[in-house]
Amino acid sequence: MITGKNYLGKELSNDGEVQFRTFNPIDNKETEPTFFEATREEVNMAVGKAAKAFEVYKKKSDLEIAEFLEAIATELEADAEALKEIYRTESGLPEARSNGEFTRTVNQLRAFSEMLKDGSWVDAIISNPEGKPDIRRMQIPFGPVAVFGASNFPFAFSTAGGDTASALASGSPVIVKSHPLHAGTGELVSRAIVNAAIKTGMPDGVFSNLNSKGIEVGEWLVKHPKIKAVGFTGSYKAGVAIEKLAANRPEPIPVYAEMGSVNPVVALPSSLEQKSDDWSEQYAGSITAGCGQFCTNPGLILAIESPALDSFIEKLGTKLSKVAPSVMLSPEIQRQFEAAKSEVLSQDGYNQINKFDGDLQPNYGRQEVISVSGESFLQNSAFHKEVFGPFSVVVKCKDKDQLNEVLRNMEGQLTGTILSADQQELQEYNDIIESLRETVGRIVYNNVPTGVEVCAAMTHGGPFPATSNAKFTSVGLTAVQRWVRPISYQDWPDELLPEALKSSNPLGILRNVNGRFTTDSL
Amino acid sequence: MITGKNYLGKELSNDGEVQFRTFNPIDNKETEPTFFEATREEVNMAVGKAAKAFEVYKKKSDLEIAEFLEAIATELEADAEALKEIYRTESGLPEARSNGEFTRTVNQLRAFSEMLKDGSWVDAIISNPEGKPDIRRMQIPFGPVAVFGASNFPFAFSTAGGDTASALASGSPVIVKSHPLHAGTGELVSRAIVNAAIKTGMPDGVFSNLNSKGIEVGEWLVKHPKIKAVGFTGSYKAGVAIEKLAANRPEPIPVYAEMGSVNPVVALPSSLEQKSDDWSEQYAGSITAGCGQFCTNPGLILAIESPALDSFIEKLGTKLSKVAPSVMLSPEIQRQFEAAKSEVLSQDGYNQINKFDGDLQPNYGRQEVISVSGESFLQNSAFHKEVFGPFSVVVKCKDKDQLNEVLRNMEGQLTGTILSADQQELQEYNDIIESLRETVGRIVYNNVPTGVEVCAAMTHGGPFPATSNAKFTSVGLTAVQRWVRPISYQDWPDELLPEALKSSNPLGILRNVNGRFTTDSL
Repeated sequence: MITGKNYLGKELSNDGEVQFRTFNPIDNKETEPTFFEATREEVNMAVGKAAKAFEVYKKKSDLEIAEFLEAIATELEADAEALKEIYRTESGLPEARSNGEFTRTVNQLRAFSEMLKDGSWVDAIISNPEGKPDIRRMQIPFGPVAVFGASNFPFAFSTAGGDTASALASGSPVIVKSHPLHAGTGELVSRAIVNAAIKTGMPDGVFSNLNSKGIEVGEWLVKHPKIKAVGFTGSYKAGVAIEKLAANRPEPIPVYAEMGSVNPVVALPSSLEQKSDDWSEQYAGSITAGCGQFCTNPGLILAIESPALDSFIEKLGTKLSKVAPSVMLSPEIQRQFEAAKSEVLSQDGYNQINKFDGDLQPNYGRQEVISVSGESFLQNSAFHKEVFGPFSVVVKCKDKDQLNEVLRNMEGQLTGTILSADQQELQEYNDIIESLRETVGRIVYNNVPTGVEVCAAMTHGGPFPATSNAKFTSVGLTAVQRWVRPISYQDWPDELLPEALKSSNPLGILRNVNGRFTTDSL
Repeated sequence: MITGKNYLGKELSNDGEVQFRTFNPIDNKETEPTFFEATREEVNMAVGKAAKAFEVYKKKSDLEIAEFLEAIATELEADAEALKEIYRTESGLPEARSNGEFTRTVNQLRAFSEMLKDGSWVDAIISNPEGKPDIRRMQIPFGPVAVFGASNFPFAFSTAGGDTASALASGSPVIVKSHPLHAGTGELVSRAIVNAAIKTGMPDGVFSNLNSKGIEVGEWLVKHPKIKAVGFTGSYKAGVAIEKLAANRPEPIPVYAEMGSVNPVVALPSSLEQKSDDWSEQYAGSITAGCGQFCTNPGLILAIESPALDSFIEKLGTKLSKVAPSVMLSPEIQRQFEAAKSEVLSQDGYNQINKFDGDLQPNYGRQEVISVSGESFLQNSAFHKEVFGPFSVVVKCKDKDQLNEVLRNMEGQLTGTILSADQQELQEYNDIIESLRETVGRIVYNNVPTGVEVCAAMTHGGPFPATSNAKFTSVGLTAVQRWVRPISYQDWPDELLPEALKSSNPLGILRNVNGRFTTDSL
């Protein structure tokens, strides 16, 4: 049963006056029950509990935290059906997606659990050459983390998503500001986390979940002196606002904001000449997947003018017309999508690639792709902006130089993709690839950018404004690096060193000892 | 010969009107020649050259850059005597210090050179399990870096210091804003770097050196859109100003500002009971070393009231009185030292530990240590502030709880030190150690905090306000991490991958391949 209350640690609380409901975009009506927005006192209480919990939690061993993460996965699985149902109700996302995202979320928790069992993630470095001080360094957590749930991933980028999983793995308590569109999903996921914390003996306050429809709860959290870092996935506007808030605190704190991207795709001539059937099919799917509500949605396809490009555009149009429109996450997101699209479509100098004449049910997103010349694109920045939803721009560059000019003027992106059917051609377009690489966090060959693998080698990040900090990823195991800092022990007595740094290497982890990586004892 | 000109890449330039001289604090007079402050156009030219150089420099192999760093060390050594002489003239620092800092600087360049020869620093991670995309990640540089020279380390934290060495190692061009106190040293060091760049075929603009006495040159640099990161060592005020400037750019960039610290030392009872002779001797030396002008100067000594503490204080006072005062870096630094000290000494409730009644030569710093009660310290934040120079405060806490209260209210610090003659005692004071650890980047056992080893395990950093970013160090090999970001290649053709990620592992570096660290090929 969903109570509509906040989790302050393990306690349910609803002291506030402000109430709101979530919305079922398919039925086009509000859902039950009512949620209580957290008050300032409740925010302070959650942060106070988190700060106190940190004193205990940071001393838990990696194995204990691994069990906690595993227990969260188990608790989620035990409640899987109810979770997926409320997920679908609040997001309008289809069953296959609810299954896929759920699996991804529990697998992600288990991946961090495995990382902790291995233990080498603390990057232990020992320098003690003859005649020099003995210095030993490792990564440690530095305090409670605020996580903002994302509208478009109620499981994988929200309450128990990558930010929470990586922060808990690092030894940092987490306070989630639940996304108002899926507060019910958030509460059920929170219950699983709280139950797992109780069952594995984690301190009260290691996790809290705060409801909020407005912006105050988030602001209070970011400004609270005991919050030490922030994870965010959402819009550029909100991300930059949070970043500025954090930078202007008396004690600035790091904000890891993933703010989206247009994810340029460069279709080299051979790909259009030889594979236009394949790519038009795959891109019609990628543009409309999740109703375009992915941060890795391909919003920009770049190519050099040619008959093959015209033919690709025609095929893409035909295939897009055959995709049944789907429901967006909320009436407001659908409204914003239409507004952003209208702004682009009010410009001069584009061609509409596809047409959809039928009527749409409320909250459905009508996919739309346009083409513009390279010149129009360079002259009009309205064509550069991310339109969150199933909308893309194909840029017809007049030659390779113009293509390169477009890329060199591009802002930071999460991903960039190169399509080619000829590896010889790649050599020839090396400068194009180089320009793209400078702009992105992940560079993809012959695929669609949608789909973000959770693995150690993933970078889901990229230069500003794709994220606020290009040095880190929000997906994959290295996401844990966001929540830790190094400390060095100098000439410290062995018995008082953390296990990871003791001479005998009791954890058997991989360490850099005087430049040699080894699991040996000293 | 020192020309007083700026290095814009390899070209000497003096277009500006504003001129200044450096100062010999021992002779108490200006030195020859006149330096020309860089104009806005010269700043733009240096940055333009750096941006262009980046296109070439980022493609240099690690081995080529290793040769460049090695060549800088060799060029410096070839000009060692002239360098040390101008260093001493401009800083007033003694011969032993000029020798030590010079050696440290060339060794540091060679340490980064060795790191590049090993090649594993790029943190290559490969994830390609059966049936999943092949994703390969490594660290890459992201553009020109601005480095601000530090007043107190003309060699090791300035023109060819740790920031420059680590940034050049990462593949990032560097523009130094030379410190006005040692512009001559800066020019000679720059000449060595430029010569090394020419001899090893590095692109023009890989390094520039700008003179400036005011703040505009630094501001222009930090705000220039093609500058992508900043390294700074200096005051809190300047560091925070630079950080805010960078955070409020249209594209925010990372600032690594090391802003100093009071470096608390906790003397546990046994250390005072059994070792007060030793520690009073060592701390009289550490407090006055370099005339107290070290960021790791022990500005705060904390202990619990006892007869042994009183005896330690008395011995410290006696020993301090025997240390001959030394010259400070400049009249202005001496003036600021006296002003900051006077502010503290105008407070109520302290005792003066040492006295120095003799007259001082101009620009000399009079060492001074006071003691206050724990209560006075907690109530009066004037006692907490860093006084840059040979000044320290001994805090006499009434008990362990008060000592812990002092530590728990302490701002971030570069270092913290525990003195103890009894490892049993350390267990008993575990909560004190824990509180100290939360506050610092390096925790030292039974030593003085002055002296920062250049090694892979060093953290010369710490929570705000010691630095602007506790996640990184400005000393030691991992300092290179500040100037790079990750990129992931997905399903990329092997022949187009960077060497570090190719399946055959042609560089033979250590890589994380599906969770296993190995130098093997795939």
